[in-house]
Amino acid sequence: METLTIDLGPRSYPILIGPGLLGESGLLGARIRARDVMLVSNVTVAPLWSPRLTGALAGFRVAQCILPDGEAHKTLATVSQVLDAMVASGLNRDCAVLALGGGVVGDIAGFAAACYQRGVDFVQLPTTLLAQVDSSVGGKTGVDHPRGKNLIGAFHQPVAVLADTDTLRTLPDRELRAGLAEVIKYGLIRDEKFLAWIEANLERLLGRDPAALAHAISVSCQCKAGIVACDEREQGERALLNLGHTFGHAIETGAGYGAWLHGEAVAAGMAMASEFSRRLGWLERADLERVRAVLTRAGLPVDPPRLGRSRALELMRMDKKVRAGRIRLVLLERIGSAVCTGDYPDDALEALLDDQFGSAVS
Amino acid sequence: METLTIDLGPRSYPILIGPGLLGESGLLGARIRARDVMLVSNVTVAPLWSPRLTGALAGFRVAQCILPDGEAHKTLATVSQVLDAMVASGLNRDCAVLALGGGVVGDIAGFAAACYQRGVDFVQLPTTLLAQVDSSVGGKTGVDHPRGKNLIGAFHQPVAVLADTDTLRTLPDRELRAGLAEVIKYGLIRDEKFLAWIEANLERLLGRDPAALAHAISVSCQCKAGIVACDEREQGERALLNLGHTFGHAIETGAGYGAWLHGEAVAAGMAMASEFSRRLGWLERADLERVRAVLTRAGLPVDPPRLGRSRALELMRMDKKVRAGRIRLVLLERIGSAVCTGDYPDDALEALLDDQFGSAVS
Repeated sequence: METLTIDLGPRSYPILIGPGLLGESGLLGARIRARDVMLVSNVTVAPLWSPRLTGALAGFRVAQCILPDGEAHKTLATVSQVLDAMVASGLNRDCAVLALGGGVVGDIAGFAAACYQRGVDFVQLPTTLLAQVDSSVGGKTGVDHPRGKNLIGAFHQPVAVLADTDTLRTLPDRELRAGLAEVIKYGLIRDEKFLAWIEANLERLLGRDPAALAHAISVSCQCKAGIVACDEREQGERALLNLGHTFGHAIETGAGYGAWLHGEAVAAGMAMASEFSRRLGWLERADLERVRAVLTRAGLPVDPPRLGRSRALELMRMDKKVRAGRIRLVLLERIGSAVCTGDYPDDALEALLDDQFGSAVS
Repeated sequence: METLTIDLGPRSYPILIGPGLLGESGLLGARIRARDVMLVSNVTVAPLWSPRLTGALAGFRVAQCILPDGEAHKTLATVSQVLDAMVASGLNRDCAVLALGGGVVGDIAGFAAACYQRGVDFVQLPTTLLAQVDSSVGGKTGVDHPRGKNLIGAFHQPVAVLADTDTLRTLPDRELRAGLAEVIKYGLIRDEKFLAWIEANLERLLGRDPAALAHAISVSCQCKAGIVACDEREQGERALLNLGHTFGHAIETGAGYGAWLHGEAVAAGMAMASEFSRRLGWLERADLERVRAVLTRAGLPVDPPRLGRSRALELMRMDKKVRAGRIRLVLLERIGSAVCTGDYPDDALEALLDDQFGSAVS
């Protein structure tokens, strides 16, 4: 088991990474004060992994709330359902919420924990690669609005993250690849050497070699931990973790939540951000080809759906990084170094969107 | 105009108190960075006071969301309605929410501001005495659940509170009296001399003497500011502001939201807490009579409805101060000094609830 720490003063917490963690009975008890817990999971993950977890929860009073699976259910209505279950179980402010599942479950359960009695403890138990390397760490919680991704939510840090790497064994291939998009992201924004390692070890990662996956999770979480510790509420550097996300969120919302997995949309978005960086003269063509090649080898899409420029722009204008009406984008000044900027020619962005999303009025 | 400050480091903000503030065009511009604002009010207050406010908002792009009036609408569904209006107006993270109304409007609008894009600025523009002396200050936001008051919410501090005392001119008598309950509360928990001042000036307060009201608001806000600055998230002393609220919330929920005004329920709850304090040997009978007398003179109820003990207990068990299953109560060790404690005999509480709520099974 490897232990990392997210250093946020009184809100610091550990990330534990390793096999078998869900079944280790002492781990949770050492990290939460609660005796009442609400286990939030979904219909896909719960049958696979909640028996291991509940076996380790002797001594707790456990209530469960099992949600439908998929991004289409990441709504305020589903949060309301979790809150209703918490009230029905008579939970008080000293309870804890356990989020067992992927990014959707973690985002919903974390937001419910943020809102219940103005905030209760919660623990992230991520069961997808994407959640283990990204969404379970850093305290972003929330839900989608029909007109924009993650528009409703809260910053609410977990008290611990337990990434049981055994859970990756039951992960569908498509979900594994979607998780690799966020792993590749860390290489692109901060760490060219890590990108080279990913390129050299991609077959092992796709083949679910436990050592390779554990290394990828560890490096990814270290990168995220460093950024979040410096900028918890995304006043600055944390925005770099959004490489590919402004385009990606437009893809997810425009295509209909759940049609594209988040990681797939981020992959296409990173390819678009790289293309735009090349057009601005920051990346060489070879760099762009390198980005597209690693994503393609990982089985990820590098081209967006044909939403049309105007629809894409409309969706991008709801991005949380917009300031004073200006869309700010995370771009690459080189492989391994990202910047967040609104300083680009409007016509260059419009041309990019025309080329990539299509110019037809949607 | 009087200016107080809530001292919370980077989240510090001013409380401005005085006549005519809603119409002073420079006040808001100096305190928010936004150019887009969402004005949230209700059908009762908006016709009376939004013209004065919007006249002072030249230079801002103003969207409005006008809610139905009353505690029965303080729900997650109404928050969702505000969030929908914000998305429909294309507001970005650099917008601001303005809450024009009483405690219900402030609680809903503040919670929407807390959740929109994980938190945007908001300004409290309280138009009731209760909101001016209590609910607009301190960052508690949220909504009711059918089974408990204020169970869903967030701590989210406003960037400013502008209490325009002119608005008290249009306040119904019943609302004025409800606000006085919270004013009296500050005397009971912290400041016996202020209670004596209230007793001596109650006719002026009920007669809406502007100087008397301004003094009551100022002293109340100073008291709250001091407590909130020491304990923003209610880890300790802030709970004392909940005198009468555990009983009061049970009354509000049990009677049906809106049947009792919050201040009325708090008044009856403070009388109950005083009675319990007397039974525990802390207050003299003369002290208890003093509490009941000032509440009665203010036109406030001092006896709860006959909900029945078991129903009352069930509701009290959802109180946010419950820890390890124990109901903690704010009680008076003397007039001017409150404590929060779970250290009382169970049978004494049961006898109190029998006597006050009735012993019948509800």
